[in-house]
Amino acid sequence: MFGRYLDRLRQVCPVIHTITNYVTANDTANMLLASGARPVMAEEPEEVAEMTAHCDGLTLNLGTLRTSVIPAMLAAGRQASLLHHPIVLDPVGAGSSKLRTDTARQLLSALSLTVVRGNMSEILAIAGKESHTRGVDAAACDTVTGDTLSQQAEALLNLSRQLGVILSVTGPIDLVTDGKKCLMIRGGRPEMGRITGTGCQLSALTAAFLAANPQNPLEAAAAAVCLMDVAGETGWKRMRPGDGNIAYRGYIIDAVYNMTGSELEKGEKVELFT
Amino acid sequence: MFGRYLDRLRQVCPVIHTITNYVTANDTANMLLASGARPVMAEEPEEVAEMTAHCDGLTLNLGTLRTSVIPAMLAAGRQASLLHHPIVLDPVGAGSSKLRTDTARQLLSALSLTVVRGNMSEILAIAGKESHTRGVDAAACDTVTGDTLSQQAEALLNLSRQLGVILSVTGPIDLVTDGKKCLMIRGGRPEMGRITGTGCQLSALTAAFLAANPQNPLEAAAAAVCLMDVAGETGWKRMRPGDGNIAYRGYIIDAVYNMTGSELEKGEKVELFT
Amino acid sequence: MFGRYLDRLRQVCPVIHTITNYVTANDTANMLLASGARPVMAEEPEEVAEMTAHCDGLTLNLGTLRTSVIPAMLAAGRQASLLHHPIVLDPVGAGSSKLRTDTARQLLSALSLTVVRGNMSEILAIAGKESHTRGVDAAACDTVTGDTLSQQAEALLNLSRQLGVILSVTGPIDLVTDGKKCLMIRGGRPEMGRITGTGCQLSALTAAFLAANPQNPLEAAAAAVCLMDVAGETGWKRMRPGDGNIAYRGYIIDAVYNMTGSELEKGEKVELFT
Repeated sequence: MFGRYLDRLRQVCPVIHTITNYVTANDTANMLLASGARPVMAEEPEEVAEMTAHCDGLTLNLGTLRTSVIPAMLAAGRQASLLHHPIVLDPVGAGSSKLRTDTARQLLSALSLTVVRGNMSEILAIAGKESHTRGVDAAACDTVTGDTLSQQAEALLNLSRQLGVILSVTGPIDLVTDGKKCLMIRGGRPEMGRITGTGCQLSALTAAFLAANPQNPLEAAAAAVCLMDVAGETGWKRMRPGDGNIAYRGYIIDAVYNMTGSELEKGEKVELFT
Repeated sequence: MFGRYLDRLRQVCPVIHTITNYVTANDTANMLLASGARPVMAEEPEEVAEMTAHCDGLTLNLGTLRTSVIPAMLAAGRQASLLHHPIVLDPVGAGSSKLRTDTARQLLSALSLTVVRGNMSEILAIAGKESHTRGVDAAACDTVTGDTLSQQAEALLNLSRQLGVILSVTGPIDLVTDGKKCLMIRGGRPEMGRITGTGCQLSALTAAFLAANPQNPLEAAAAAVCLMDVAGETGWKRMRPGDGNIAYRGYIIDAVYNMTGSELEKGEKVELFT
Repeated sequence: MFGRYLDRLRQVCPVIHTITNYVTANDTANMLLASGARPVMAEEPEEVAEMTAHCDGLTLNLGTLRTSVIPAMLAAGRQASLLHHPIVLDPVGAGSSKLRTDTARQLLSALSLTVVRGNMSEILAIAGKESHTRGVDAAACDTVTGDTLSQQAEALLNLSRQLGVILSVTGPIDLVTDGKKCLMIRGGRPEMGRITGTGCQLSALTAAFLAANPQNPLEAAAAAVCLMDVAGETGWKRMRPGDGNIAYRGYIIDAVYNMTGSELEKGEKVELFT
């Protein structure tokens, strides 16, 4: 289903402006390069609109948020909207502090976001629902699992319509919805949670897929999730005795570097929730 | 001796708020994850107290210090003190600039720090003793070696009492003291000095051990040092022709990821200085 | 030709103050350590002059530029000039935003820069020539190739005289000129462009070579380029099935860690343009 989305990304080589945190910026840039996209990272309010104008898509990531960067996110976002670039918000830590929750909401109301990509706790916090996050991980009770699947898919379909944005919610089972359809994606490995920044990488990849495949934003967002999941599985097969989260981090990005469209298509496990 | 300290960390999975430099933040986050802890990194004064309230321990690291972050360190530190969370200060570069030395002292006097973890030059600078640092490495003449061991252990016992804080001083021989006892730890490899950020990683690990083992802070701080030393040795055994400091960096973190309590216990080389 | 430049770097172990972007700071620090140099990274205007005074060379890198750091670059640069330290400017993204272009020019006019190290688009932008950059990569039409070589070498010889600085311009063929001579360097691999930060690493290495070999700045700058190119080739030979840009990034830095002066000498492909 999604092989041609990756093939298209590799033809287009979109330039993705990513305003992000310093903890995971390097891995995010290398993940974009692995996928075939090209990263630009700038956060000075004075230049971000100009930088965005050279790009094809924008990612806004709230990790290590400083208030001084919020005007840059708004300026870049407005420019991206003007140019009809896709914008992905990764509301890292929404629900953990008033600043993060408020900033996520401010960006959601001020900008034409295409996708919000986060864990369930973050999404619930933005929507003003009860959330149980602690730090930057989803609370267990917020996590999508087989037991709560249909209930959470319904809730996300509603939230997507209410917020007017595609929601890409990752966890043991990933759900991507535009308010009309909801795609369920299985795959990946729980050990990916032992690596910092896999979520940040996925958000940037989502912007790259959207920029290269603008006609089908729901499918493009789901393709990014599938790529990350399949890379998590491919990378895991390379783990040898002694390897840990650092080796695994590299294997995942390198799996994206080497993945072909047909390998993605073969590995993806996506269903339409009905 | 320290196997159960690591076992306990893995049961508790403490969340550690780390306000740190952007050079080594990624490795520090991944090292916390490797140990079983979970990282949170936030530095905006407006949100740090709230973030710290969700956590179990705090690390303050002065690398790439900006004055705008000092209020965040103070706010997070006050919240952590209120909640009786352990606080570890890593005074990176104290002695190299007035700003770093003064900031380290300000944090020491304003907050109830649990541990200061640094090299000998940094600790001497904070204490107002003559220090010989150049940049961020300890000066050779400040370094703890076999020849100067008993003299430096005595000096650190005194300094620990004077400053009212546990001192964890790393070098060819590591010394950890609470002013009453002084533990000497051998191990590690000199090549660890060719990797940026092993000290920053150790400071964050120290906070994680303290958070998981609050009854024995001296031993918890020493356990973190032993873990790093044993991981440095285990990682070194994986070095193959062509490998350098980047491979070694990964092997050390991956060694922590895979280390069991009993392996730590078998590898640790700790003595009580008397 | 350049083996003894590397040998000398390893004897001197220069301390290099690098004011840089947070995306590639970690790799840059580890690359300096791999080469035998030692990194210091500080960017607070209040302390940078003091930090630079302990060092032997300075790198100023415009990636993720914030206006608040420009005063720090100027203060560090003035201190470095006073002490006759070499200063390398990496004008990341010049030509992509007015802020980057203007800042590069401001640093060039306010400080005694030794080398400007960038891609052709960035160098053309600084010189006020037409540039075609998009984001942080050189435009294809600006790139030095066999076809345009002699024309571009002439242009760079002129620009170097006009700007009063050594130009180190990297691309498929690298050109290093002090306005009198122009050295052409071949080597490296196109896949290095799929790793974020290889240019940033090279700029910091250039400062290290200059600090250790101050009598021959043109040759020292060219030696850094050769080291990076040879490491790119040595590292590539280690690539195995499944490896991608993350593995390659590590192999390159590790190749520098292990490279001897005579290996550099054997691998370097440098000619004088006449």
